Amino acid sequence: MILGLDIGGANTKASSPDGCYARSVYLPLWKDSRLEDILFKIKEDCPDVEKVAVVMTGEGADNFLEKRLGVRYIKQNVESVFDDVYYLNVDGTFEKDITDEKKFFSANWIASVIKLMELEEDFLFIDMGSTTTDIIPVIDGRICSRKTDFERLLDGTLIYIGALRTDVSTMAEKVKILSRDRYSPIAKERYAQMADVYNILGSIKEKDYICETPDGKGRSIEDSKRRLARIVCCDLEDLEDCDVVHIADEIKMVEINMLSDGINKILNKKEWDGRIENIFIAGSGEFVVRAALKRVKDLYNINSLSEIFGDEISSVFPAFSVGSLLERSLKDNLI
Amino acid sequence: MILGLDIGGANTKASSPDGCYARSVYLPLWKDSRLEDILFKIKEDCPDVEKVAVVMTGEGADNFLEKRLGVRYIKQNVESVFDDVYYLNVDGTFEKDITDEKKFFSANWIASVIKLMELEEDFLFIDMGSTTTDIIPVIDGRICSRKTDFERLLDGTLIYIGALRTDVSTMAEKVKILSRDRYSPIAKERYAQMADVYNILGSIKEKDYICETPDGKGRSIEDSKRRLARIVCCDLEDLEDCDVVHIADEIKMVEINMLSDGINKILNKKEWDGRIENIFIAGSGEFVVRAALKRVKDLYNINSLSEIFGDEISSVFPAFSVGSLLERSLKDNLI
Repeated sequence: MILGLDIGGANTKASSPDGCYARSVYLPLWKDSRLEDILFKIKEDCPDVEKVAVVMTGEGADNFLEKRLGVRYIKQNVESVFDDVYYLNVDGTFEKDITDEKKFFSANWIASVIKLMELEEDFLFIDMGSTTTDIIPVIDGRICSRKTDFERLLDGTLIYIGALRTDVSTMAEKVKILSRDRYSPIAKERYAQMADVYNILGSIKEKDYICETPDGKGRSIEDSKRRLARIVCCDLEDLEDCDVVHIADEIKMVEINMLSDGINKILNKKEWDGRIENIFIAGSGEFVVRAALKRVKDLYNINSLSEIFGDEISSVFPAFSVGSLLERSLKDNLI
Repeated sequence: MILGLDIGGANTKASSPDGCYARSVYLPLWKDSRLEDILFKIKEDCPDVEKVAVVMTGEGADNFLEKRLGVRYIKQNVESVFDDVYYLNVDGTFEKDITDEKKFFSANWIASVIKLMELEEDFLFIDMGSTTTDIIPVIDGRICSRKTDFERLLDGTLIYIGALRTDVSTMAEKVKILSRDRYSPIAKERYAQMADVYNILGSIKEKDYICETPDGKGRSIEDSKRRLARIVCCDLEDLEDCDVVHIADEIKMVEINMLSDGINKILNKKEWDGRIENIFIAGSGEFVVRAALKRVKDLYNINSLSEIFGDEISSVFPAFSVGSLLERSLKDNLI
């Protein structure tokens, strides 16, 4: 069988091209050196693996002095576990030997988008993960975004906000304290993250809170409220419960507005005026994307990858896609 | 002898009332449990200690479920090392038994301000540390600010920005990329901190970079530039050197503007119109405070604590002050 791997900074994901096998492991590369162990465990799950297809974003983790070293580290770990490995580059083709590491930086969204071209040739793909959001326009089966993270920050197809890990103190300067009818500045400290906001509001369940907590404590709603209260230097007892819920709601609205502004900016580009009818949405922040799309004026067909492919595949979509693309490339004798 | 202790979230500081002994140790309470060890080392430095005066802010570290537990933890650690311990509360009086922990939250600035009242009775005290800034007006020898961190965020006498630990991604949404004459959004990730900004600009030396680095790597200017480049998802080679320096300069200006706005807000309050002539400035961010004061319209006498008391005492001023206040209280039979 073929195995697809998506090795990110915070999560390592694996999937077979038929989606029967799908697994996601929280593995923060910047401080956890167990990548090889995790890959061995995945190999134990799938003893029949013959070929492996890889995309990555983990080379951007800040334990690597530069991204090239991150690519080499990931390649070395994968090849110490698996024999026959193919890497997808940002041009959408596979290479076995990586000669120019730069072509492999942050290529995981490329796999997803090429896979979706099997369904449509004009669409927008919006994938909100734990930390970042990809907003990729595809017209006539052509990817209309730049390729590097830096260029994509500039062209608006990468927005560095996510549904779980994003630090609340990066989202706003102040929040309203409802019971006092006043605004309070926010402590610039990693006291709470978006997972706490959505946990408090019931948008995610404890099982969806898959990243670490900022204070190393639990993932209950009470734990999240305690963390969110800290952003205004409070213990929970210093605020009314409605204050904490209102802060969560306000920060949620900040994220939804940022995202809908970003989506509008891409949709309204003159180059593809009117061509986009279908929007594919994916990722652990799919519910945030849905909320943001309600603020977009025109009507689009919104297709959720979890509805098309099921929750399991949707949650590891780049891994599923890259495996599937390798299978197709081998069948078509493109490699 | 009497020893003054200022036990903060990130640093534990100790000083004798004459300032001959002054020591600061980076000890992030939220993840490092060596407080007792550090206190034993301080005791070894000062075998003649008879009485200890304590102020704290470390109870706010997020390893404590609530601040009361932080106060108890600090008290327990101090008293396992020292015998005769006095705690300064937010009313400016000492207690040996802590009955209401709330009265001891974040009292370190109280010690500094009461000490300065020996010099003036109308003044503004501005102390920028690694993480936060206190802006305290004193009129007729009376402290004109609220007492808790939350109330002080609201009244503007606590601004949660500092000279070292403050995460760059909390300071701005975008930065200018000089070589492209364009703005880039910032990655919402703890890739770089204000110490990197000031290190790149030459405002601090490597020896002043006393906190941890975000990526666990070194403290050279090159290291800081590498970290700052990451906030726009770049390796150093992806940017011109002038881009990185310009980003640092822009983030510095954001902080200076935030601080001068905050100072102006306090200075312009009608209640003490015209009464404040003297401003005392202190802390590891004294150079930022100086820059911010250049943007304040009216003329004030600016008194640097490092010039009045020397660098050593200035860098541990609350510890120096609380020891000195205990000495005076004992002499005056106030305890």
